[in-house]
Amino acid sequence: MSKNTYAIIGSGALGGFYGAKLQKSGLEVHFLLHSDYQHVLVNGLIIESQDGDFHLSKVNAYNDVNKMPKCDIIIVALKATHNHLLPELLPPLLKENTVILLLQNGLGAEPEIASIIGEENVVGGACSLASNKVSFGHIHHIDYSQIRIGKYTKNYQPTAITDKMLEIAGDFENAGVPVNVSEDLLLERWKKLIWNIPYNSLSVILDARTDEIMADANTRNLVTEIMQEVIEGAKSCQRQIPNSYIQTMLDQTDKLKPYLTSMKIDYERRRLLEIEGIVGKPLQIASQAGVKLPKIGMLYQQLKFLDARNRQHI
Amino acid sequence: MSKNTYAIIGSGALGGFYGAKLQKSGLEVHFLLHSDYQHVLVNGLIIESQDGDFHLSKVNAYNDVNKMPKCDIIIVALKATHNHLLPELLPPLLKENTVILLLQNGLGAEPEIASIIGEENVVGGACSLASNKVSFGHIHHIDYSQIRIGKYTKNYQPTAITDKMLEIAGDFENAGVPVNVSEDLLLERWKKLIWNIPYNSLSVILDARTDEIMADANTRNLVTEIMQEVIEGAKSCQRQIPNSYIQTMLDQTDKLKPYLTSMKIDYERRRLLEIEGIVGKPLQIASQAGVKLPKIGMLYQQLKFLDARNRQHI
Repeated sequence: MSKNTYAIIGSGALGGFYGAKLQKSGLEVHFLLHSDYQHVLVNGLIIESQDGDFHLSKVNAYNDVNKMPKCDIIIVALKATHNHLLPELLPPLLKENTVILLLQNGLGAEPEIASIIGEENVVGGACSLASNKVSFGHIHHIDYSQIRIGKYTKNYQPTAITDKMLEIAGDFENAGVPVNVSEDLLLERWKKLIWNIPYNSLSVILDARTDEIMADANTRNLVTEIMQEVIEGAKSCQRQIPNSYIQTMLDQTDKLKPYLTSMKIDYERRRLLEIEGIVGKPLQIASQAGVKLPKIGMLYQQLKFLDARNRQHI
Repeated sequence: MSKNTYAIIGSGALGGFYGAKLQKSGLEVHFLLHSDYQHVLVNGLIIESQDGDFHLSKVNAYNDVNKMPKCDIIIVALKATHNHLLPELLPPLLKENTVILLLQNGLGAEPEIASIIGEENVVGGACSLASNKVSFGHIHHIDYSQIRIGKYTKNYQPTAITDKMLEIAGDFENAGVPVNVSEDLLLERWKKLIWNIPYNSLSVILDARTDEIMADANTRNLVTEIMQEVIEGAKSCQRQIPNSYIQTMLDQTDKLKPYLTSMKIDYERRRLLEIEGIVGKPLQIASQAGVKLPKIGMLYQQLKFLDARNRQHI
């Protein structure tokens, strides 16, 4: 096992879960918290998981990055809608060769981070994780936990797997989290969008859980058609995803326990939705390559309407 | 003024309004009612309208077609979802040369009616009417009332305007309802769909009034794009609608007072939605001509999901 120290920026359903797993495996982990800070400082973190429940009674909890030690690996697990905070949050945590592991959905965040710390040390990860925060410091891990990581390079050119990536993968594997390393981060991002675009969007628009969307023949077909459009979007970036991957995603979702997507949860909490990273940016990239994605375009318009109205009433 | 006698099959927000206007103008009108029967029998009909409120204290109210007299003109103003009742409802009302005036949204109902009474006496009408039934026998006419009528022929071939059509138009005009007579019923049906498909569908999917849909730049653009697809659908039937008609519809809707569409009201009352006539049939016709309408297809899938779930909980 490495001696890497980890900082978790955004210790919610995703960052809190992975951070807790890493700490449980014996690594030093430092958690930046916001609303949960007081609670977690006193009570630690509770992980309720199909892989085994556990309680970390004591964690390194912070509400200010300036009080945190510099770390080897910084996991950015904020909502993409808070990435504007990163120019303030990251610098105090950096030492030479600190690696940022960006565990977020959608496209477009890596270049922003590279502009803060340089592109050399940015690794992106696409997580297949069904997990919800059920109360302060209490995370319910429902299903899956796998991460696919790839190194960021300018314009997302494919690139060789580095020792550091293998080290990070080793740390997660030790903690019971399967990690695949990839030479092509952009391909991984588009593959993740095949799930995220239909399910996140439709769960909000139709006020539905994944199992309801799958049980109805009309929305099941719609999901498939939207996935087809995501494959077209990937092609517009010269990334080939086989059509058979659609069936893999449908099967995986069929097996998933009834689940509210992260976007649906954000919607219910009247938070700004991750529309731009998950839907807007892929649309924009495809459109710049002259590729039209009409159904995804319509999801975008519907989501923007719902999001604006949802937060207007706050 | 003619001496035509009128039967109104389905005396709700639309049939009740037009029937009341015709009776007020001096014509003999017979109303078939369902849930409102007892109330209307005793209290008559109240029309609250921008064109002037009025109360018909006594109307010919029925809850059984077999008690109604045969009439010259039968206005079918049922929800299209109840058209399966027509083979029972129409025959007792027919005399020689009775004309059926079908005032319904969507495509596909005229051939059904022609199969009952023969195609010679079927006239279709597309109504621009914003009207809601607010309680038993009480109709709130919000805006517009114009009807465009055209004679049905096999395969919707355009055909000459008949004297009977002009007579009907005269009756409505006398009653203060503007009527245009058209040689091309199918063109009128598609023109009406330009409004109905986007606004009815999005009002249900996004839980929104027309003014909310128009006030948001994203949904306003979406409406425009859907209207564009309806024009493509019309083209697949060799019907040309100029692009400028889209702006006419947008302007008309901008001027409309905040309005819940009929499909939205049906949804709130957990009634079966008119999805097939308004969205499904136009899609099917375009598809048979090899024309894809992806956004309308997605509206259909979303509506079918919502409708099924909505009525499951009854």
